[in-house]
Amino acid sequence: MKYLFFGIALFLVAACSPEKSQRPDYVLVIHGGAGVMNPKDFTPELEKAYQDKLQEALDSGEAILKNDGAALDAVVAAVKVMEDSPLFNAGKGAVFSETGENEMDAAIMNGKDLSAGAVAGVRTIKNPILAARKVMEESKHVMLVRDGAEKFAMEHGVEIVDPSYFFDQKRYDALLKAQKHGTVGAVALDKSGNLAAATSTGGMTNKMTGRVGDTPIIGAGTYANNNTCAVSATGHGEFFIRYTVAHDISALMEYKGLTLEEAATEVIFGKLLPVDGTGGIIAVDKDGNYTMTFNTSGMFRGVVTADGKREVAIYKIFSESPLISQEISLLCFPHRSIVGINKSRTATTGR
Amino acid sequence: MKYLFFGIALFLVAACSPEKSQRPDYVLVIHGGAGVMNPKDFTPELEKAYQDKLQEALDSGEAILKNDGAALDAVVAAVKVMEDSPLFNAGKGAVFSETGENEMDAAIMNGKDLSAGAVAGVRTIKNPILAARKVMEESKHVMLVRDGAEKFAMEHGVEIVDPSYFFDQKRYDALLKAQKHGTVGAVALDKSGNLAAATSTGGMTNKMTGRVGDTPIIGAGTYANNNTCAVSATGHGEFFIRYTVAHDISALMEYKGLTLEEAATEVIFGKLLPVDGTGGIIAVDKDGNYTMTFNTSGMFRGVVTADGKREVAIYKIFSESPLISQEISLLCFPHRSIVGINKSRTATTGR
Repeated sequence: MKYLFFGIALFLVAACSPEKSQRPDYVLVIHGGAGVMNPKDFTPELEKAYQDKLQEALDSGEAILKNDGAALDAVVAAVKVMEDSPLFNAGKGAVFSETGENEMDAAIMNGKDLSAGAVAGVRTIKNPILAARKVMEESKHVMLVRDGAEKFAMEHGVEIVDPSYFFDQKRYDALLKAQKHGTVGAVALDKSGNLAAATSTGGMTNKMTGRVGDTPIIGAGTYANNNTCAVSATGHGEFFIRYTVAHDISALMEYKGLTLEEAATEVIFGKLLPVDGTGGIIAVDKDGNYTMTFNTSGMFRGVVTADGKREVAIYKIFSESPLISQEISLLCFPHRSIVGINKSRTATTGR
Repeated sequence: MKYLFFGIALFLVAACSPEKSQRPDYVLVIHGGAGVMNPKDFTPELEKAYQDKLQEALDSGEAILKNDGAALDAVVAAVKVMEDSPLFNAGKGAVFSETGENEMDAAIMNGKDLSAGAVAGVRTIKNPILAARKVMEESKHVMLVRDGAEKFAMEHGVEIVDPSYFFDQKRYDALLKAQKHGTVGAVALDKSGNLAAATSTGGMTNKMTGRVGDTPIIGAGTYANNNTCAVSATGHGEFFIRYTVAHDISALMEYKGLTLEEAATEVIFGKLLPVDGTGGIIAVDKDGNYTMTFNTSGMFRGVVTADGKREVAIYKIFSESPLISQEISLLCFPHRSIVGINKSRTATTGR
């Protein structure tokens, strides 16, 4: 059944090549995690809180892109907004490991020169994405973990906080119901044509101490290459590592000639879904095409482009409709294709 | 100049497709690190010590493959021999970080189901490759770092040693002259057609505390996929992470139809060399083709196959010859192509 749906999805994607239009000046796509998300699990207030925070993250990144700023700065700004919010599983809102600690991972990659930086297992860095950027720009290394990463961050002026910063009993109790999902991330294309990706996470709830997921693994949870695309992932990280998800999408474009949405569909539905690898990705390619593809029932996500598109969303697009015909008409909507195969898998693709 | 040589290399590789022969029952390829290696830096005794240990690693892995054992077991056995030797920068011989510590990384991947395991920044695990395998087989995670990895390893019966095990002043002084290189690794194809890769390292000499290189990054330093190939890398790890080297070789085969040696040449010479990303890889594909491709002046390496090939080597094949014609004749040697472009870059490819 999975494969039937996948086949239909591929067909639909292939059948609806949206007309080629000019590359927008800039594109910013963000995510705040993917997972099982049903409207009944969210109060209207909580839903609005998520939507507002996603809008704020978009605003923060767009302000940079609009003023000729760099994709790299935009993705950091957008991710930082989500790290500073207790709503998402990153920074302030990081989930707890099996020993009750918060251990965070983050990575950033510059598509212009494939430079990259990552930190993993850090417990005292207020904004792990800022530390990842410092590793990229001010160390000779790509990845630093645990106390080595914390020492480096401190020496390079990144704000250090007491681990208690990440814990607030009242907020913790309130948010338990809201079930934290995945990770936060951003990808951007700037006016100069540069791509960048950034991802930050608190990891899996109840993970083992020292567990590192896909977020800080260049090629798995984070990847950017000006020849192809920028990708940020969220989901069951172990699968995203084993399937080298972010680089695989780039490779399918570069070596097999797939479009961004075909490549994303192939990896998220064709490869991950059959092995129950749940999650999704956001991506933007060098021509400004973007996609938000996930095989779960929801993904916090948002997009803004220079030519006026702006949207934030949480759930998959369709609730219960079994009518493929309806989906085809939506799928082929000009400049904006939406793939909603059934209620357990949804891909939203753009341009 | 670099590009001219690369162009010639690609042409030569393309011009000499060795005739297709039957897949050998098994293939095992190992490496013990790549780097600047000149015969004058090695005493005959030291050279022999390396050759003997490489032979021992081959013996250890081949014994398993010959008796219908799994590629996974063979690569672990071969890597363990090198981890237990002070000659290589892994396990017993791990180099020192800037704070005088030994921090080791290792990873393993099973091409059959893409399962994988990795440890990073461990200081007390005698054989990091055994811990990586435990992570793969007995945890829900793919990657564990630092004390989390050490705690898990101990709980799962992996031998723990005092950090002093990795330090021996006399051996240290003696080996300083020998300049440790890279990493150790093994790739294998077994009689059942399964591929596996394993890599283990002490990292870069004088690295920052907490630095993680490409070795434990699935897709960068270690990758195996029964659809394509198994790869283990050694070299300047930051470049191998940024260029997702191991997965890129696999992707070039799968999506672009390149042969293993074309893919390895493209990545090691076409992508890494122009950015001064030094190092190399060993790889074996699903049909038993193998390659040992490096852009440095030497790589400790060895290969054994069921159909009687057996070889260990240290330096590049050619010393000073500028005559491409000589190289062509060697390159097209039946069943065994050797690419030696100039003295600063050498690829040895097999079958």
